[in-house]
Amino acid sequence: MTTSASELLLRRLNTSSPDFEAQYAQLFARMADENADIDARAGEILAAVRARGDAAVLEFTRRFDRLDAPDMAALEIAQSELRAALSSISSEQRQALEQAAERVRDYHQRQMQQVGRSWEYRDADGTLLGQKVTPLDRVGIYVPGGKAAYPSSVLMNAIPAHVAGVEDIVMVVPTPGGERNTLVLAAAAVAGVRRAFAIGGAQAVGALAYGTATVPKVDKIVGPGNAYVAAAKRRVFGVCGIDMIAGPSEILVIADGSTPPEWVAMDLFSQAEHDELAQSILLCPDAGYIEMVATEIRRLLPGMARRDIIAASLSGRGALIQVRNLDEACELADRIAPEHLEVSTADPRPIADRLRHAGAVFLGAYTSESLGDYCAGPNHVLPTSGTARFSSPLGVYDFIKRTSLIEVSHAGAQHLGRIASVLAHGEGLQAHALAAEMRLDRARTP
Amino acid sequence: MTTSASELLLRRLNTSSPDFEAQYAQLFARMADENADIDARAGEILAAVRARGDAAVLEFTRRFDRLDAPDMAALEIAQSELRAALSSISSEQRQALEQAAERVRDYHQRQMQQVGRSWEYRDADGTLLGQKVTPLDRVGIYVPGGKAAYPSSVLMNAIPAHVAGVEDIVMVVPTPGGERNTLVLAAAAVAGVRRAFAIGGAQAVGALAYGTATVPKVDKIVGPGNAYVAAAKRRVFGVCGIDMIAGPSEILVIADGSTPPEWVAMDLFSQAEHDELAQSILLCPDAGYIEMVATEIRRLLPGMARRDIIAASLSGRGALIQVRNLDEACELADRIAPEHLEVSTADPRPIADRLRHAGAVFLGAYTSESLGDYCAGPNHVLPTSGTARFSSPLGVYDFIKRTSLIEVSHAGAQHLGRIASVLAHGEGLQAHALAAEMRLDRARTP
Repeated sequence: MTTSASELLLRRLNTSSPDFEAQYAQLFARMADENADIDARAGEILAAVRARGDAAVLEFTRRFDRLDAPDMAALEIAQSELRAALSSISSEQRQALEQAAERVRDYHQRQMQQVGRSWEYRDADGTLLGQKVTPLDRVGIYVPGGKAAYPSSVLMNAIPAHVAGVEDIVMVVPTPGGERNTLVLAAAAVAGVRRAFAIGGAQAVGALAYGTATVPKVDKIVGPGNAYVAAAKRRVFGVCGIDMIAGPSEILVIADGSTPPEWVAMDLFSQAEHDELAQSILLCPDAGYIEMVATEIRRLLPGMARRDIIAASLSGRGALIQVRNLDEACELADRIAPEHLEVSTADPRPIADRLRHAGAVFLGAYTSESLGDYCAGPNHVLPTSGTARFSSPLGVYDFIKRTSLIEVSHAGAQHLGRIASVLAHGEGLQAHALAAEMRLDRARTP
Repeated sequence: MTTSASELLLRRLNTSSPDFEAQYAQLFARMADENADIDARAGEILAAVRARGDAAVLEFTRRFDRLDAPDMAALEIAQSELRAALSSISSEQRQALEQAAERVRDYHQRQMQQVGRSWEYRDADGTLLGQKVTPLDRVGIYVPGGKAAYPSSVLMNAIPAHVAGVEDIVMVVPTPGGERNTLVLAAAAVAGVRRAFAIGGAQAVGALAYGTATVPKVDKIVGPGNAYVAAAKRRVFGVCGIDMIAGPSEILVIADGSTPPEWVAMDLFSQAEHDELAQSILLCPDAGYIEMVATEIRRLLPGMARRDIIAASLSGRGALIQVRNLDEACELADRIAPEHLEVSTADPRPIADRLRHAGAVFLGAYTSESLGDYCAGPNHVLPTSGTARFSSPLGVYDFIKRTSLIEVSHAGAQHLGRIASVLAHGEGLQAHALAAEMRLDRARTP
């Protein structure tokens, strides 16, 4: 189903066109609901792992990853192997990993200062109210393996957990045919992963959610995976926490014509090269500039290693959309709520200030999405498929939880008890009312 | 299946007993996995609402709520009706509602100061990094109706949304047989609900998630409901956000014997009276005090209006557990990760400081859970069934989302571009690498 680069189709839309709404609806038709077969299969795998633990994980790993391990211990990747991987890569790669990790850590430490603090206060009655913030005890990080193994995803998932104070970070990464990706292991060493297992798929999700004799049960599972992983995560939600259900990646570029058109073309490619379902869209009021970008796309495409994937993605889901003006571009961007939003304009800040719905906003011509993907500092795990309307980038807030604190003073019990009593009786909850009334000074013993 | 009060069974456990682990496992056996039939039925209802909108919602409302409305407009509860409800209740009730709302608002405003601020900074290269916080545009609040209609839940769900800055708060509440609960409507008027509909069940979840001609599509659905509502919320997760899947309510009381035993007995009742699956547990090192609480339970039970529910709950899921000491009580509490945790001891603070996993902690003898349920200020929507290990009370953070901001400077593009290029090549993502390299000063045009 790959489109060869020569068959590239560049869809043009114009918001002034009478059939724009119909074209828009087609362009953003969400993927069909998750496949019922995949969901049922993921459910069977989870049930087997829950019932039979390690033995089931070994069987599924043999079947799906063609990896015949004698026992689960053989599938654990030792800390020494992570460190050896870090020592074995080039110093250029090691430096890049470490510098990226340092920047990501710095950003998430600032985030932690915002959301990670416990707080409390006393009211006029001396009653203490507050909220205690604690990190999760143990989290599982799912790292995709095989053809799309991304060491940067190890950093982006593990570092916020580490900064949040999670003691125990457990990584799972499938290794089809037994091949372990050196950069992924090196990234795990840099990011503070405590234990790692060469398992993947719904079976890895099950092992983390329920625990097995070898794989420790975690409190939350984060990280993207294929359709089976997504279905399994949805099913275990409640047994443990999950981050989000990731869809195909997307970029929306708002351009005013001030950025070199080949930069914009390459930014569209850098989303499209992820996979054929990725979505790259340009919004621009200038028809001439749109043509220049289209020309650059056609010129650059043949030189791209992943040109067939890029062509399929652009042809299937991409679009160059002419808008009336930048105001309209903003309205459309908010309607789309894209994962990545580049504001590639001469004066991007006023535009960024009015945008409401996006996972991450990249301001100005120098801010290619790829800089954010790897090393600017913010997280590259972002809400997809319009879910930026209600969800956030992965962050330290995904690895902490809060506990309310209340210590009612004697005076507070008198004041609050009267309110609680009235409301509890109004709800027909007599014991609630009596529990409050008993603490009143002149309580009658019932 | 109700237990009559005279058949009360008070389960005693002792952590020193050799069969404690077996008894513990039995006591905390989680409910069976959600019923597959209920899940399938919820799926059918959602599909019908998605396909046929208002017509399907009307049909299900007729069938399940015995409420035959000519059209959806007839099921909208007008603002004037909310205001009329507020005017019609007693001034004592109105004051109690308004004072509770004021305290809940104050607490959540302080929470908002912690998590609601956008922030940004520039690094040494002049690159801007930050995070923009925006409220959700529109949220749906599910309020249970019928036998368990709780105005306090309206306050606890709507006020954090309102404080977070959500413009559009849409309440749904089933009204079986058409009976509208005046206190629920009055609470909606106090809490800033913008629109309200007399619908419930999976059909109301579907209407909010997908939108119909009459019911606006929301970005997130919060609030507890029955098993169909829970199943429907799980299924629409991704189409919109959801808060959590609520299980039966629980209280754990750690007592050192310094609190009047009838206060503790009534606090256990006030959880048990919610429903037969609610769970009330006492941990105490003092066998004599445990007997005093048991005696108070038997003495007070016959006078309780909801004695049969209380008896069924205590007999089926309650326990009085003797522990070796308060240290062990803390360990056990962390293992249970209860929704509500009362530390009813003379010096509660050191105990609260070492506890890690609980939805809300109530410190000292005066802090009955019921004061927190209604009016202390913190939210009463709390993580149940051990999910306090990874999730938090409902809060303003459930009604905001974050967008990362990145504006890379010219100097930053030089520095970051080299890191990104190395990592992108390492991942085999050439377009990502080229997008970074093009921004380098001496970029070769590819």
